[in-house]
Amino acid sequence: MDVLTITDVSPRDGLQSQRTMVATADKLRLIQGLSAAGVMSIEATSFVSPKSVPQMADADVLLPQIVRRDRDNISVLVPNLRGLDRAIAAGANSIAVVLSASDTMNRKNIGMDLDMATQICVTTLKRATDLGLATRAYVAVAFECPFEGIIPPSCVRDLALRVADAGARETVIADTIGAAAPVQIQDVLQLLLVHFSPMQLGLHLHDTRGMALANAWAAIQLGIRRFDASVGGLGGCPFAPGAAGNLATEDLVLMASQCGLHTGIDLVALMSVVAMVQELVGPPIGGRSARWLRTIVEQDSHKEEEK
Amino acid sequence: MDVLTITDVSPRDGLQSQRTMVATADKLRLIQGLSAAGVMSIEATSFVSPKSVPQMADADVLLPQIVRRDRDNISVLVPNLRGLDRAIAAGANSIAVVLSASDTMNRKNIGMDLDMATQICVTTLKRATDLGLATRAYVAVAFECPFEGIIPPSCVRDLALRVADAGARETVIADTIGAAAPVQIQDVLQLLLVHFSPMQLGLHLHDTRGMALANAWAAIQLGIRRFDASVGGLGGCPFAPGAAGNLATEDLVLMASQCGLHTGIDLVALMSVVAMVQELVGPPIGGRSARWLRTIVEQDSHKEEEK
Repeated sequence: MDVLTITDVSPRDGLQSQRTMVATADKLRLIQGLSAAGVMSIEATSFVSPKSVPQMADADVLLPQIVRRDRDNISVLVPNLRGLDRAIAAGANSIAVVLSASDTMNRKNIGMDLDMATQICVTTLKRATDLGLATRAYVAVAFECPFEGIIPPSCVRDLALRVADAGARETVIADTIGAAAPVQIQDVLQLLLVHFSPMQLGLHLHDTRGMALANAWAAIQLGIRRFDASVGGLGGCPFAPGAAGNLATEDLVLMASQCGLHTGIDLVALMSVVAMVQELVGPPIGGRSARWLRTIVEQDSHKEEEK
Repeated sequence: MDVLTITDVSPRDGLQSQRTMVATADKLRLIQGLSAAGVMSIEATSFVSPKSVPQMADADVLLPQIVRRDRDNISVLVPNLRGLDRAIAAGANSIAVVLSASDTMNRKNIGMDLDMATQICVTTLKRATDLGLATRAYVAVAFECPFEGIIPPSCVRDLALRVADAGARETVIADTIGAAAPVQIQDVLQLLLVHFSPMQLGLHLHDTRGMALANAWAAIQLGIRRFDASVGGLGGCPFAPGAAGNLATEDLVLMASQCGLHTGIDLVALMSVVAMVQELVGPPIGGRSARWLRTIVEQDSHKEEEK
């Protein structure tokens, strides 16, 4: 059976950019809902500075409350050694680090240049690996940076090799602002596949230009089977005007299921999580397939009632 | 230069399903707008019975008003010999016929079975070919029928060969209700490509499940270079609940341009047509990329003003 693994990043990347503050208890409901829908990998929170990302200020109290059954599927973002320490204290056993591929993005985002940011990522990955944690490393703005424009694929390859050498079990290439088209996805992945097996790589897509699913398909064709996605397409990017949310989990699950790829995720249960998140954050959310999926879910429930 | 040819079907397939009646003069503005944006192929109207499709009742007066410059890029739909006669009387030099791939769809749509519908298509295509008109034939609901479910690819192949034998210069495979995923697109196209060259084929996609662009990409990978699309994603299908509009022209143009495929279409001019259509039909329209494109267009106009 051909399996496609989805990491739902809505509790972290999805909520992070929302203005409405979401209570810890509601974040727990979201995570439990995703888990109940069959999502096997969830990025739960981020151990960044509460000052810079207030929405993630409850990381230290959120993680310990995630029931044991779910924790094996849970990863958290850590920006540095201090974040790693906090994550471990809260019970994390799987962490992710992020490295932006451009100098300016690193300066704007974390106030340091690319070299320094790389060093911090490498140090954090090494420590986490030494401690036996599962690790994932993101190369962010890997296609286009809102400040520097097109990122040379060779730069992405070099950074991916650096974080892999430092112990990242999985290297995720992130189109943080949703700027790539299928040809750009192919160009970068083909270069990476000289050095990596497809199973060592993942793809993180945003749907700004409506091409997230087409990009996912281009990557699937190259053997990639790990994707980030966000229920309801929740998300955004503070640095990129007009940037839309992440690739919606429901869109990817639907395409995968029609293409013979097993995700283990139940679409009806997932759509109830979309409804829950919509209540939490206010404005309507939902992936490209949400309108149709809602119609189908409604029809099914009418049929159930008639029985 | 690798060229991708887009037939914008918004004046026909797009408007046909709209409740708001659009005046002939406004349809002319739409067609002129598309042409000015660089769209080289436009499906202008349909010579169906005015009773069954009131929105197309002005076909006989619309077509003669299209200025000569545009007419070479204009095609019209004809359901049968009577429609063909009307189209020719109105000055058509390029026609299209539609054949649904399932028995039930033909019965529901035009009140006859598949055999009879095929005969009428064949007769119409032959007459048009004899008269020297350019011809295009659609195999509709080619992936899934709302009444009969999955259509066997071999059935689509057989119908495509029938209409091609009858003289269709281009055979367009239509996912009328937007049910296909990339694997289904591949399955049908690969079967057809045993008999057809990629340049003899076209693809008509709807975006019901959010997969239209991914499907287009799957087809582009197989060498297909002719696509129907509709500005703003305008469209729908009366027989399929939840069915969304056509693949949006702006989405396809954007992806093509980022993938080195030349469409000749200017996105800024195209977005002004989206705005015009939105005023005509009422509810907000726009493809998956529209929100981002609007942001970009706005930024560009601010920069222009500052100069």
